[in-house]
Amino acid sequence: FKDDNLASLTSDINTGWTLQSGYLVFFMQAGFAMLCAGSVRAKNAKNIILLNILDACFGCCAWYLTGWAFAYGDPTNQCSANSWDEATCAANGGPFPGLSASQAFIGNRNFVMSNMDRTTYYLWFFQFTFAATGATIVSGAVAERCRFESYMLYELMIVLFVYPVVAHWVWSPFGWLSAWRTVDTASKQSYVLFAGSGVYDFAGDAAVHMVGGLASLAGAWVLGPRIGRFDAAGNPVDMPGHNASLTLLGVFLLWFGWYGFNPGSTLAITYGIDSFSKVAAAVAVNTTIGAASGCLATLFITMAYQYFTLGVVVWDLIIAGNGALAGLVAITGPCAFVQSWAAFIIGAIGGLVYFIASKVNLHLLKVDDPLDAIAVHAGAGIWGLIAGGAFAAPGMVNNVYGPLPGTEDGQRKYGFIMGGDGSALAAALVCIIVVGAWTLGIMTPFFMLLKKVGLFRVSPEVEAQGLDVSHHGGSAYPHEEGKNGKALESFG
Amino acid sequence: FKDDNLASLTSDINTGWTLQSGYLVFFMQAGFAMLCAGSVRAKNAKNIILLNILDACFGCCAWYLTGWAFAYGDPTNQCSANSWDEATCAANGGPFPGLSASQAFIGNRNFVMSNMDRTTYYLWFFQFTFAATGATIVSGAVAERCRFESYMLYELMIVLFVYPVVAHWVWSPFGWLSAWRTVDTASKQSYVLFAGSGVYDFAGDAAVHMVGGLASLAGAWVLGPRIGRFDAAGNPVDMPGHNASLTLLGVFLLWFGWYGFNPGSTLAITYGIDSFSKVAAAVAVNTTIGAASGCLATLFITMAYQYFTLGVVVWDLIIAGNGALAGLVAITGPCAFVQSWAAFIIGAIGGLVYFIASKVNLHLLKVDDPLDAIAVHAGAGIWGLIAGGAFAAPGMVNNVYGPLPGTEDGQRKYGFIMGGDGSALAAALVCIIVVGAWTLGIMTPFFMLLKKVGLFRVSPEVEAQGLDVSHHGGSAYPHEEGKNGKALESFG
Amino acid sequence: FKDDNLASLTSDINTGWTLQSGYLVFFMQAGFAMLCAGSVRAKNAKNIILLNILDACFGCCAWYLTGWAFAYGDPTNQCSANSWDEATCAANGGPFPGLSASQAFIGNRNFVMSNMDRTTYYLWFFQFTFAATGATIVSGAVAERCRFESYMLYELMIVLFVYPVVAHWVWSPFGWLSAWRTVDTASKQSYVLFAGSGVYDFAGDAAVHMVGGLASLAGAWVLGPRIGRFDAAGNPVDMPGHNASLTLLGVFLLWFGWYGFNPGSTLAITYGIDSFSKVAAAVAVNTTIGAASGCLATLFITMAYQYFTLGVVVWDLIIAGNGALAGLVAITGPCAFVQSWAAFIIGAIGGLVYFIASKVNLHLLKVDDPLDAIAVHAGAGIWGLIAGGAFAAPGMVNNVYGPLPGTEDGQRKYGFIMGGDGSALAAALVCIIVVGAWTLGIMTPFFMLLKKVGLFRVSPEVEAQGLDVSHHGGSAYPHEEGKNGKALESFG
Repeated sequence: FKDDNLASLTSDINTGWTLQSGYLVFFMQAGFAMLCAGSVRAKNAKNIILLNILDACFGCCAWYLTGWAFAYGDPTNQCSANSWDEATCAANGGPFPGLSASQAFIGNRNFVMSNMDRTTYYLWFFQFTFAATGATIVSGAVAERCRFESYMLYELMIVLFVYPVVAHWVWSPFGWLSAWRTVDTASKQSYVLFAGSGVYDFAGDAAVHMVGGLASLAGAWVLGPRIGRFDAAGNPVDMPGHNASLTLLGVFLLWFGWYGFNPGSTLAITYGIDSFSKVAAAVAVNTTIGAASGCLATLFITMAYQYFTLGVVVWDLIIAGNGALAGLVAITGPCAFVQSWAAFIIGAIGGLVYFIASKVNLHLLKVDDPLDAIAVHAGAGIWGLIAGGAFAAPGMVNNVYGPLPGTEDGQRKYGFIMGGDGSALAAALVCIIVVGAWTLGIMTPFFMLLKKVGLFRVSPEVEAQGLDVSHHGGSAYPHEEGKNGKALESFG
Repeated sequence: FKDDNLASLTSDINTGWTLQSGYLVFFMQAGFAMLCAGSVRAKNAKNIILLNILDACFGCCAWYLTGWAFAYGDPTNQCSANSWDEATCAANGGPFPGLSASQAFIGNRNFVMSNMDRTTYYLWFFQFTFAATGATIVSGAVAERCRFESYMLYELMIVLFVYPVVAHWVWSPFGWLSAWRTVDTASKQSYVLFAGSGVYDFAGDAAVHMVGGLASLAGAWVLGPRIGRFDAAGNPVDMPGHNASLTLLGVFLLWFGWYGFNPGSTLAITYGIDSFSKVAAAVAVNTTIGAASGCLATLFITMAYQYFTLGVVVWDLIIAGNGALAGLVAITGPCAFVQSWAAFIIGAIGGLVYFIASKVNLHLLKVDDPLDAIAVHAGAGIWGLIAGGAFAAPGMVNNVYGPLPGTEDGQRKYGFIMGGDGSALAAALVCIIVVGAWTLGIMTPFFMLLKKVGLFRVSPEVEAQGLDVSHHGGSAYPHEEGKNGKALESFG
Repeated sequence: FKDDNLASLTSDINTGWTLQSGYLVFFMQAGFAMLCAGSVRAKNAKNIILLNILDACFGCCAWYLTGWAFAYGDPTNQCSANSWDEATCAANGGPFPGLSASQAFIGNRNFVMSNMDRTTYYLWFFQFTFAATGATIVSGAVAERCRFESYMLYELMIVLFVYPVVAHWVWSPFGWLSAWRTVDTASKQSYVLFAGSGVYDFAGDAAVHMVGGLASLAGAWVLGPRIGRFDAAGNPVDMPGHNASLTLLGVFLLWFGWYGFNPGSTLAITYGIDSFSKVAAAVAVNTTIGAASGCLATLFITMAYQYFTLGVVVWDLIIAGNGALAGLVAITGPCAFVQSWAAFIIGAIGGLVYFIASKVNLHLLKVDDPLDAIAVHAGAGIWGLIAGGAFAAPGMVNNVYGPLPGTEDGQRKYGFIMGGDGSALAAALVCIIVVGAWTLGIMTPFFMLLKKVGLFRVSPEVEAQGLDVSHHGGSAYPHEEGKNGKALESFG
């Protein structure tokens, strides 16, 4: 009786923790909305905020229909659910009778929340907030020129199918790349853990940031740059957003929400043994350190770059804000596995990767990404996966995943910089390649199709006038005549 | 000894959960402030934000003086408090000796927090945030023309008296409409549960949204429209707010805060049995689905309406934001009692109700409500109460309220769409009528009195000039000469 | 086995509570950023937001390097850590063998998080957010004229050294002013509790608000007023911020975050006995009441003052917002020790103190503090410490600190207004004098040195043009030509 109470108490506490973390992750939608709104010109503010609110709304519907099912619609362990003894369990075909090989690639249960126990709803909610966060990244990259109708189609595409499959690979106990696999869940595959390790992506550099960042790349590349973003010679022309205060408000809201994203990914604060809460605490510390070092690294790198190329000392706020985000993205994957000094390095290199990726994007690829979403999310996200393979510390990995199945000492693989072998890094690299190919391979043709049928981009007239007046019932700032009135006249 | 620890642990955890939920509800004040500020013209931004901050401050004082006492100032169960056996309990006149019939209508203890145990303070705090939220709704409806002095009087009126009484009816275990009544608390009435059911209003469609929304109707109607809101022919003239980014920031903050409002209304996350946290989880899921479907329904309905009447395709951001709020309001009452598919329907119809109520309000009633607060809160709030009576699912109602007193199987009434009878709907309809009559019956004469004595509305000169320059020490944006300077000149 | 589970559960729950409270305190950075941004002129918005984000980033690095070590780098109790019996403990030199007298003044362990158990990381995180909050206060006082480079140095100075030492004095169980001292931790001093009481500063009026507020005074005084802030005759000229909506958004965010700051300072929500959560609940109630009464008192005092001096009725939003902050600051120190009626008085007097301090500052000292940070934080912070000594209630003090060491009845000192003696007040007054001398004594010469070497203030040309165009890569609002373009031309 008493043990039951304690078990129920523990699971209720963990549900509460995860719900509250999910609220914070949801709040990142507000952060993205403000980040995006401030970073575009005033004439497109309503458009971009509408994209952001629809990320939450369409995302919810898509997650309800198929998203959760493809990502986490997994079979229940029949042995433990029915309290079978070992013999009965074996006689019935093991814990997952009828398990198919495809379960490693995609989930297939609980469409429209069917047959879900209400005690698992908290996970549905928490994972929904992740799907919506990943999807919303693209809104920044296609800003100021994408047709609203095609964005709705994109949103459905990514949350119905593209994101959930990657989430399944990496996080489901059945996923082929997942470090959560067991001998039982992997029974249809030739291996338990990919590369003997599985990919170490704690809070979502693969599923959320790489998918969102690379879908951004596909979208911004197919869409082409905004009119005037490059001059006749192909050199980029500055196109600053209309409100840096809103942009930075967005950065602060995102940073705050990240405390749900990273520490909340523990999905629990206690198991009544072994002070499990120390995992969440270390994640909170690492998240903070990663953000701080990412911001500072980017600020100083950019200052130095401008000083040596232009001879001026500029401390760029927008870039510092993006640097904080890049640090956060970089630490997202490895946050539960690395020491605090490593978090500092990972965040700082995250800032550097963002800086370089942003330059490559704009100057080499000539891709116009109004929010630098590609550099922040794909760039620092890929680095974060590598960093997990490099810096993961032995004790910490085991704290999260438990002992390695089928070994004596149970020690899981850890980062080569920490004295481990290259297994974790190999898993990370394969993850990067496969998730990259999956995302670009689906989203690029999808966006090209939208372009082909003329749905993807607004007309040059509408782009010049701004999308708010054309499509959203008027300017976001209707009383600032000098700013919005003129645009209207020129196309009156 | 051990059981005591577990009991203390459980109650502490629930206190923590409720406090943290209350913080989120308090944060809705920030949401309302930004929603309102963005939706008015720049010349009145300071005024409306001041109204919002005073909702919290006066609300706190009024809640301290009488609000809590009228709402929840109930007698303590003497039998359990004193661990009386059954005989002693009966000899002393039952659990609530000296209970009077009036206790069904209004609480009468704990004025100025007197005689309250500090272990109940968390409820005082949580319920305060609800009172402040309900009161703040009106600030939007009377914006841009209401005298600041009269708003202070209104604020006191509603939190000292009007709101607490309705909260008592619906939520106190002694309230005449309450589904929380027991044989003991109802011992002075001829029935235990009204209509055999009591009203199913989990998080506050009656007390918060109907009271706030109908007080808004009374206020906006008595106050009359803003100058220029209707042309000479009586047709409405658009008067957009000055900053759609702020308005939508407000929507996001409110949605976020709603996760305190709805799931927090469980007042507990665990009882150590029966996975009580699943109630909060289902509420979080339903709240999200309701918001999403409300937003999408409103967006598409408005688009279709404009397409068929004006021939243009407009995706209106402000209306979509209000649609999300309408979905949230609609699901607030039934959120703990309905399946997720029902939440989708309830939110979507909430959006439709908002759309229709807004049109009726503006075109038929000719009421000028700058924030559409009446349509969102009263409209969708009334629908939410009806939906609770229609869609409440049998198991879920019992999860919340426990077994029906005095019956064999303990099954509570449930929604007629779910196969139940019409009892829950009947209770909801009576609640709507009585709360409507109460709110309009008190607030309309109150506002008329304010008008009579000349306190209610600013002069036309002040209205044209804006309230900020006249009454609040200057414009909210003092450096934007083009925008604020001109208004000054014309009345210099 | 079971007891261990319960102990682990309890400590995990408290870790979760403290982490989540820390998130809210971190969120105050967003609040300060918006408060500051709105309160300066548009031409300096990016500069001030950058200062705010760097408070978090440099603050994190400084806290990592030495901040935590100086504040909380204390020895571990060897007796309990090694489960020594009394004899072994005594034989080994007591619980803290080798304890030095200097431990009362400064911590000396755990630099760069070395030798820290991961179970204490949650405290590192929580206390970091406090250090960052204290540091960020200064950004407002030096706004619009301080060189960015010198602000980085200031930030390091205060988080590396000045703040941690005060935090150690007041909050470490070894600190000489701390009410948390025990017979063991104080074994190297001639007394256990200073003045028999120790200073009653629950959530940080000394370390956070006095240090931040007085460093602001030193900074603003050394820096001198902004050009044009005083006319030729030395009379102040109004210099309103550019966006009151942002300013008040900041107030709301800060108020929200304060629910992490004050109730979170319990560092625990449960100990499985004695309903410990009632402390956090009372703190949440007092925090709300203090904010409300501070806001209302300031609003009405300012209105009355203007009415009697200028004959106009003005309800000033910015001042009301600062009044809410002053009420929050005032209640921060005594929040866990006072009755709710006392919280009302403390908040209201906090508003009055802010009003007077602001006038003294501007008219007598001729110090230009764009955010009124000195009056809000130093003024109301000093009052809060005094109020703790005056209003602390007997039962509540013991609830927080436990029984007084070495006494029969264990009753701690309480406020003289509550019938106690003057001990608690004496400790508060000494704390005010010493912390004041420490902060001003270090920061004033430090700022003077920065001034001496020409690092502290931008040139008059840059100040007139605005710091954003000069140093941060362009205006925060680049498309508002009328507003930003002109400034550029005049110094083209």
